[in-house]
Amino acid sequence: MTALSDRALALARAAKQASRLLSSATTERKNDALRAMAAGLRAATPAVLVANALDLAAARAAGQPAAFVDRLLLDEARVEGMARAVEQIATLEDPVGAVTSSWDRPNGLKVRKVRLPLGVVLMIYESRPNVTSDAAALCLKSGNAALLRSGSEALHSAQAIATVLREAVTRAGLPEASVQLVPPDRALLLELLTLEGLVDLCIPRGGTGLIRFVVEHARVPVVKHYQGVCHVFVHAAADQAMAECIVVNAKASRPGVCNAAECLLVDAALADAFLPRVGRALREKGVELRGCARSVAVLRAAGLEVVAARDDDFGHEFLDLVLAVKVVDGLGGALAHIERYGSEHTEAIVTADRPAADRFTREVCASAVVVNASTRFNDGGELGLGAEIGISTTRLHAFGPMGLVELTSQKYVVEGDGQVR
Amino acid sequence: MTALSDRALALARAAKQASRLLSSATTERKNDALRAMAAGLRAATPAVLVANALDLAAARAAGQPAAFVDRLLLDEARVEGMARAVEQIATLEDPVGAVTSSWDRPNGLKVRKVRLPLGVVLMIYESRPNVTSDAAALCLKSGNAALLRSGSEALHSAQAIATVLREAVTRAGLPEASVQLVPPDRALLLELLTLEGLVDLCIPRGGTGLIRFVVEHARVPVVKHYQGVCHVFVHAAADQAMAECIVVNAKASRPGVCNAAECLLVDAALADAFLPRVGRALREKGVELRGCARSVAVLRAAGLEVVAARDDDFGHEFLDLVLAVKVVDGLGGALAHIERYGSEHTEAIVTADRPAADRFTREVCASAVVVNASTRFNDGGELGLGAEIGISTTRLHAFGPMGLVELTSQKYVVEGDGQVR
Repeated sequence: MTALSDRALALARAAKQASRLLSSATTERKNDALRAMAAGLRAATPAVLVANALDLAAARAAGQPAAFVDRLLLDEARVEGMARAVEQIATLEDPVGAVTSSWDRPNGLKVRKVRLPLGVVLMIYESRPNVTSDAAALCLKSGNAALLRSGSEALHSAQAIATVLREAVTRAGLPEASVQLVPPDRALLLELLTLEGLVDLCIPRGGTGLIRFVVEHARVPVVKHYQGVCHVFVHAAADQAMAECIVVNAKASRPGVCNAAECLLVDAALADAFLPRVGRALREKGVELRGCARSVAVLRAAGLEVVAARDDDFGHEFLDLVLAVKVVDGLGGALAHIERYGSEHTEAIVTADRPAADRFTREVCASAVVVNASTRFNDGGELGLGAEIGISTTRLHAFGPMGLVELTSQKYVVEGDGQVR
Repeated sequence: MTALSDRALALARAAKQASRLLSSATTERKNDALRAMAAGLRAATPAVLVANALDLAAARAAGQPAAFVDRLLLDEARVEGMARAVEQIATLEDPVGAVTSSWDRPNGLKVRKVRLPLGVVLMIYESRPNVTSDAAALCLKSGNAALLRSGSEALHSAQAIATVLREAVTRAGLPEASVQLVPPDRALLLELLTLEGLVDLCIPRGGTGLIRFVVEHARVPVVKHYQGVCHVFVHAAADQAMAECIVVNAKASRPGVCNAAECLLVDAALADAFLPRVGRALREKGVELRGCARSVAVLRAAGLEVVAARDDDFGHEFLDLVLAVKVVDGLGGALAHIERYGSEHTEAIVTADRPAADRFTREVCASAVVVNASTRFNDGGELGLGAEIGISTTRLHAFGPMGLVELTSQKYVVEGDGQVR
């Protein structure tokens, strides 16, 4: 056995051992630990900011773009936000031990399904330092041990934060190995990804390259968070004012996130009336439009600037103030386009026609199908899950935002009075 | 692109296309197809038996053991059983479209979670011909397209059965590619296991070697069906007559299946009284006992034959009339033994003590935790799921018997009246 395997095994075994204690920890004790984590983050703000300054200096020296540096940046308000997020997780209902269903069998057996933690969760992420505390808190509350692999660009920050979290967990009487930082070493990560039976779930969050790397090499289960190519379809029976508002919000309110819209589909019956007004509103927000031939004709006739879309503009995640626009022939045309180009993340329809909405919600396969609202609502907080560790586009296990419940599984508990087969 | 990739892609793309139609097929149409499948199996019994005879002849010529030949064997009664199993699946509730929960958000958004099929399920199994019709029927009813990879020893049988099923599916107006047999070619299987986005789930059923092969090479999600090392713990407060009956049933009623007991744990407080009586009952059923030092002493003093257990007899799946026996110190000793040697499949306690039962069900991590009943009840039919495609010991997605519901996922449907963020 190599030294590398030893290191991976030591990390994973410590996590597994911690997970066994965590799985039967009381809600009170877990909440105590979470509150201690929040208090620790507040108290350690100066140390965390010193560590973060090292990461920021390195990022600036490496010529990282401003958006990257901003994602990396911590200040007092952001550390306070991290502390509050951890405290908020303490207020959420504990899924562990919940009985989700129960029934009796004709032979008198009583069957119930009871939630239990997954065990050890390996979380791989990039440069946002708050993910370290968010993921640790969500895993702890759901009774899972967390192996956290932060992006190396945020490593000093992650180390400072993890130190605080581990001290808090220990003070609350839970195992220190409930939260462990995985050193940024690709070979070590590869080892961890093969440790079936010790690592119960891997959640990679980040660019497509990272996720493909994980999927290619993992033998442990992976729940993926690929990017979102989200559409808004404005149906012939849409309220145009509502549709305009939803399209602008879906595209422009925060273009860099996965639930932002990347493509507008307009029903041919509504194209002449709706495209000029929505085009104007989008252009006012600085959105670049890339249209199909039909939409280009309508938009240009209205005096609006629009680029002729190339084939690869459809199905593309711009993550920027750019929107592909296509005129489609009715609901069937929209469904066919989404089936071909969608990423099963979030798809929206705007319509006042009940049968059209019903067919759209039934036939579209996406983690969230939205009627008459913005795609931006596909988010754990917005849907009422309280907090999320990411949005899954894997249909297995969890599809959509993953909150505490999605970090658990269910076992059968069967009680009898001597039944045999 | 190689010819091999072409073949795998052609299979998977046809399945994906079929799955899109299946996902919105009505319950009536799916049930029509299932009833046509059952009628087709009955009508084609002679052809199926002719094909099966080829497999049987090859198995006998290859000197396969009698148990293997029996698993492979079909006769009129067994084909009738397959037809009935398919008909029974037609009577089960359709999970697709079921609303599992719903709530309103403060901003007026209405959120619901709705079941949808997984898509394309690749099922890999061994020599039981009935798995071909069972798996095809379960996948079809749950709206999934099935890629069925039968063991090569049962290939003629599987081909004859699949031909019948495909004709029936077509007659019912559903796509023929809803059910496809995958040719027995390991390289082709390897290709299929990498087709992320086309194959949504792989379920390998069979020996540990097959499952490890699949886990090692798959990039698509895998739900595993490893073997069961199931324990029965007889607690100090057990009703001894009940315990004897449960232990004998768990071990001897069908020793070759994964929910049979492989190890008996007896509370030290009860060892002198209980071990001789259960030992006698087990010996009468022809069970070989392999005991720890303490149990050997008690059993031999009672004049019962017992082998001294080796270390590797604990945690071993005998799949035979062999039982490891160990005296443990109370509930804590049993929990520690199960944590170390259990396979998270099925674990049982016999006790009249409520707190002991509660601690056991809370702390034991297994797909089914059983109190005062036989481990043999961890089975889809016995637990009331109606039918199962296998028993998962992966905590992700499904843990325990996988029925129709476990062959689906859930999407969020969000309805608003113009909400934006």
